Amino acid sequence: MYFASDNWAGVHPAISTNLSEKAGGYASAYGDSDFDRTVELRFNQIFEREVAVFFVGTGTAANSLALTLVAKPGGLVFAHREAHIVVDECGAPEYLSGQLRITTVDGPNGKIDAAQLRRQVQRSASSDVHSGRPNAISVTQATEAGTIYSLAELDAIAAVAKDFNLPLHMDGARFANALVSLGCTPAEMTWKRGIDMLSFGATKNGCWCAEAVVLFDVTKAAEFSFIRKRAAQLFSKSRFISAQFDAYFHDGLWLDVARQTNSMATALAETFAELDLARLTVMPQSNEVFAVIKKKTVTAIKAKGAVFYDWPAPSDFELADDEQLCRFVTSFATTAEDIGSFRSTLQEVAIEQ
Amino acid sequence: MYFASDNWAGVHPAISTNLSEKAGGYASAYGDSDFDRTVELRFNQIFEREVAVFFVGTGTAANSLALTLVAKPGGLVFAHREAHIVVDECGAPEYLSGQLRITTVDGPNGKIDAAQLRRQVQRSASSDVHSGRPNAISVTQATEAGTIYSLAELDAIAAVAKDFNLPLHMDGARFANALVSLGCTPAEMTWKRGIDMLSFGATKNGCWCAEAVVLFDVTKAAEFSFIRKRAAQLFSKSRFISAQFDAYFHDGLWLDVARQTNSMATALAETFAELDLARLTVMPQSNEVFAVIKKKTVTAIKAKGAVFYDWPAPSDFELADDEQLCRFVTSFATTAEDIGSFRSTLQEVAIEQ
Amino acid sequence: MYFASDNWAGVHPAISTNLSEKAGGYASAYGDSDFDRTVELRFNQIFEREVAVFFVGTGTAANSLALTLVAKPGGLVFAHREAHIVVDECGAPEYLSGQLRITTVDGPNGKIDAAQLRRQVQRSASSDVHSGRPNAISVTQATEAGTIYSLAELDAIAAVAKDFNLPLHMDGARFANALVSLGCTPAEMTWKRGIDMLSFGATKNGCWCAEAVVLFDVTKAAEFSFIRKRAAQLFSKSRFISAQFDAYFHDGLWLDVARQTNSMATALAETFAELDLARLTVMPQSNEVFAVIKKKTVTAIKAKGAVFYDWPAPSDFELADDEQLCRFVTSFATTAEDIGSFRSTLQEVAIEQ
Amino acid sequence: MYFASDNWAGVHPAISTNLSEKAGGYASAYGDSDFDRTVELRFNQIFEREVAVFFVGTGTAANSLALTLVAKPGGLVFAHREAHIVVDECGAPEYLSGQLRITTVDGPNGKIDAAQLRRQVQRSASSDVHSGRPNAISVTQATEAGTIYSLAELDAIAAVAKDFNLPLHMDGARFANALVSLGCTPAEMTWKRGIDMLSFGATKNGCWCAEAVVLFDVTKAAEFSFIRKRAAQLFSKSRFISAQFDAYFHDGLWLDVARQTNSMATALAETFAELDLARLTVMPQSNEVFAVIKKKTVTAIKAKGAVFYDWPAPSDFELADDEQLCRFVTSFATTAEDIGSFRSTLQEVAIEQ
Repeated sequence: MYFASDNWAGVHPAISTNLSEKAGGYASAYGDSDFDRTVELRFNQIFEREVAVFFVGTGTAANSLALTLVAKPGGLVFAHREAHIVVDECGAPEYLSGQLRITTVDGPNGKIDAAQLRRQVQRSASSDVHSGRPNAISVTQATEAGTIYSLAELDAIAAVAKDFNLPLHMDGARFANALVSLGCTPAEMTWKRGIDMLSFGATKNGCWCAEAVVLFDVTKAAEFSFIRKRAAQLFSKSRFISAQFDAYFHDGLWLDVARQTNSMATALAETFAELDLARLTVMPQSNEVFAVIKKKTVTAIKAKGAVFYDWPAPSDFELADDEQLCRFVTSFATTAEDIGSFRSTLQEVAIEQ
Repeated sequence: MYFASDNWAGVHPAISTNLSEKAGGYASAYGDSDFDRTVELRFNQIFEREVAVFFVGTGTAANSLALTLVAKPGGLVFAHREAHIVVDECGAPEYLSGQLRITTVDGPNGKIDAAQLRRQVQRSASSDVHSGRPNAISVTQATEAGTIYSLAELDAIAAVAKDFNLPLHMDGARFANALVSLGCTPAEMTWKRGIDMLSFGATKNGCWCAEAVVLFDVTKAAEFSFIRKRAAQLFSKSRFISAQFDAYFHDGLWLDVARQTNSMATALAETFAELDLARLTVMPQSNEVFAVIKKKTVTAIKAKGAVFYDWPAPSDFELADDEQLCRFVTSFATTAEDIGSFRSTLQEVAIEQ
Repeated sequence: MYFASDNWAGVHPAISTNLSEKAGGYASAYGDSDFDRTVELRFNQIFEREVAVFFVGTGTAANSLALTLVAKPGGLVFAHREAHIVVDECGAPEYLSGQLRITTVDGPNGKIDAAQLRRQVQRSASSDVHSGRPNAISVTQATEAGTIYSLAELDAIAAVAKDFNLPLHMDGARFANALVSLGCTPAEMTWKRGIDMLSFGATKNGCWCAEAVVLFDVTKAAEFSFIRKRAAQLFSKSRFISAQFDAYFHDGLWLDVARQTNSMATALAETFAELDLARLTVMPQSNEVFAVIKKKTVTAIKAKGAVFYDWPAPSDFELADDEQLCRFVTSFATTAEDIGSFRSTLQEVAIEQ
Repeated sequence: MYFASDNWAGVHPAISTNLSEKAGGYASAYGDSDFDRTVELRFNQIFEREVAVFFVGTGTAANSLALTLVAKPGGLVFAHREAHIVVDECGAPEYLSGQLRITTVDGPNGKIDAAQLRRQVQRSASSDVHSGRPNAISVTQATEAGTIYSLAELDAIAAVAKDFNLPLHMDGARFANALVSLGCTPAEMTWKRGIDMLSFGATKNGCWCAEAVVLFDVTKAAEFSFIRKRAAQLFSKSRFISAQFDAYFHDGLWLDVARQTNSMATALAETFAELDLARLTVMPQSNEVFAVIKKKTVTAIKAKGAVFYDWPAPSDFELADDEQLCRFVTSFATTAEDIGSFRSTLQEVAIEQ
């Protein structure tokens, strides 16, 4: 009953196997081998156009370096108050860009409210050199709240980006989960919506360590190659990342894993709903379930072996004194049996209390 | 006949196997699992004292972040003119520290001359705020020239560091190769010599991606944990690095691999010496051989399938117009058969020319 | 009728005269002359203890470098939402520190609410490496809203700083205005309250260009001297700043100017109150008056020659569609005649509308 | 007998007077007044074309920010080994650019050797992402050795810049001294030679604090305005700099002062030559004289009241054990009487020894 995070689950067997198979023989280092190139080209197919792809080691690196690429002196990045780049990256975007400032925008369910975004961008845009200037907008898809921007919601944000001529970044740490939830194509969820730079995450969806920055403006590729190397994110034996992506994309593994993972989250949410032991903040659309649970219930569930995190409640969140916000995350390793065991655990606790 | 680089050789089978075996089950992310902790503790044994260990993704990250830890405003780092941090890291040390300047020191065979180092440090130390101040010294062991600092040579450099109260960093991208070449213990080559911070490389010696910053002053550990995370070098599924180090250290694999790799470089050097087709710049002490070869010979050897790099000659290097400096690197995958094939190739070329 | 800003007013005659008198003769450069030293020592008298003083060129430099001195990787600075470092410095604190992040705190009348500050610091303090860590607190005295923290209010904020072991910075761009408003000593408003670093501004109160960073922990002086030089804020002919401070402090000029300037702001506020043409957001305690005025009235007043800025309303500010927030600032050059003229102008407009 | 530095001499009376005259009245802050604009426009006349001008506070700021404007990830700046940006700015260029690396080039008399420059740029240009890339070239005119690049020498360096498509920066801390020494126009010494960015210094030539970045590509102006503000170099009462430049340019004051200052240096050099007490390293072409003097003579001269600096000898400099390199700098305040007194002093010492 491990629901602490999708990165507690190790690596998917198919990916592990491919990594072993690609272990031998000689190949050019630093991403220059034919194999690396072949895997990179897979991204063109996936996105139905030419893209520039750069493998990096962590999602924090992908986000920070994508924003560094477009960073301007005095620049402001607009992101949701609960965005990963705001609350979970130890200042990497500010540090690696050398200067960026992030202005937070509100909005329900972890999603930027486009109207408020427009007002905030407008306010900075009308100002002079003292206040700096709008520089970029960043959205997370799936969001940190387990929700998904609809295509229309992305369009509304992209319209602000376009009106103010701002690059639009998507933190896709859970890209596949969002994709299968929406049931659209990668192209439809990104560049057809106006996304300029994508942090394409695969680690949380079953890889060891496979993240990529995808640039839809390929003329930026040469510049980004220096940005990646300068940030110590160019791996010498780059094929260990390529091998992961190779297996990830093979026969649609990435989508299958995401679908299964999402369905386990739905099952978990339904379990909560049936047993009436928790109040969901929103129905999960990806693989994260946020539930408000009585503190004594939390203690009891954990005592029976369930692993999950208490989660800091957003500042505008209403919580009774005896309640706790909890986060449950499913992964490729989550099985129907796990959900069943957790359901039994909940039932036991319900009876006891 | 692949002698391009030790990072062209994929991963050692024993390491690949261990990575597969550690792939399943749940474990705390971000280096917090028991398994991560166990592997970290292995470093204490190896260094015969308590050390603070931080896994990172690349050697460039290890070097840059170790120097960032001690960076002072206006600080100067002293390193050899051909050091990796000077010529091969795209400015990562300056960038990640936000300011460091590297002052290059000369010395034969890729090694800092301690007397000249002392003069250069002295010159800056006697200056005021305008010139900045000495901040750290960095040595590479084994050096970028394939040579090894003797313990006495390290002592001479450490004496300068001590006299000027400067932290001493060792870039150990080829740490194991140096260790078996000297035949001393890790402790004797590092903290017993006065090394404060070590970039402990394992990637070039058979791992996929396993580098560590080792701090001999464990009171700096808390600070460094923020430095690593802020630089996007904290991996969520950290056990994929731990699993590599676990196998690397098992039953002395790392030392066996290094010994074998070094012996192949020696065999290569002897082959050159016997056949009189190349002038070695220095006898190899680790796994790199630098040879001056007639350009037409280089062309002929490459045409027969040997893979190696032409290498930029240091600025004080004498080279005839028809000569080329070449670098040959051996790895865990290099076999006696490879050397034999190369020897045959050289003989064929010798006959043809 | 110039109320645009206190930095529109040139330099106070006494300061200009002293600058001329100190223009000739030879003196050591870069702040090393006896005269520089004498002026620096005046700060010890003013603060009734030994302090370290560093002259810099702008208030933005003073704030950013004071925060840079204490910056830690992943560090968060807490400041009021409308603080100068947040909205008016083009990202200089983030840039010059290379990484700092500013988390904004709310509170009425431009002042941080200590209880909310404590909650926000607490939330970050209980987190791990991902969220970074609290690093410093910055208050502005007098605030950007023209108000003053009482000594008790400073104590409440200092208590948070102390409880979480955070350095406490004061942006004193209008230090003198605050001081005479409170009627306390410089010591009472700073280190006796727990302030660690002070941006001591004199430019807005009658100097050309005279700002200082005052450190109450003098052991930090050596480090800061490199921080200042590295940031290009060490002036070669430093005595041109010293000469300004010399006159500024002579015979209490700085306090006299501040008293007079504040009194003009009070007179302006009273004029508004009497004529009922504006709604003051708060009664001025320093030399800034913020008034909500009907847009058509604003237009009429400006047409008659009054110079002042429309001001962006804070995001939680209620404003009718036909209203405008306006800022009026008095300076050493503001006279009772100016106020009288402005009063007449207002009366004319009142009659016309 | 003050020859320590040109920045020991305070301010020229005409400049001081103008500063007093411009002290009163109201004017827009932050460089937006009509007066600021008028002074900026004078630069167009001086350079015979449209230029973008940005006043800053120090020469270090001018140099660092000009280089920051063009800085690229992994970029290398080529400058002379003894350049001010290398040895006298405490790492400000690296820090303010966030990453720049300076590669030093040799050449006699403080001047870059164009042929060697070409070789060094070529070496980096042919390399890959690991070594970074050439980014800019910086020359100092007049040089730190008191010499002047001829127009032909500048052309040779500009040819390298052009061939490798690199921006060319001129550190003109002693711009006027160089200009009158060459007897050419500002245009001829800068953009007609291929200079892209100029640090235009006036402080050393008689101002208090008046430096400017001059961009010959005016399309960069908008970007630079953020770079300046972000670096805390935008002064609120900017007219105090404008007033200095206003007087500086009035009736050719700047050129008159430079001519007089240079002639005093020549007189000083001739005095040394006549009395045979010193060996000049090169005949001065601007206002700095570098002389090798017996240590006991140095002591004797100083004992009689002459003020000048012992100077660190460049690393390739031959100096006997009993010799000292000394620097003598003349300024607007240096008079023929000063030279006469110094001559008498030297004569006395010659007799005594």
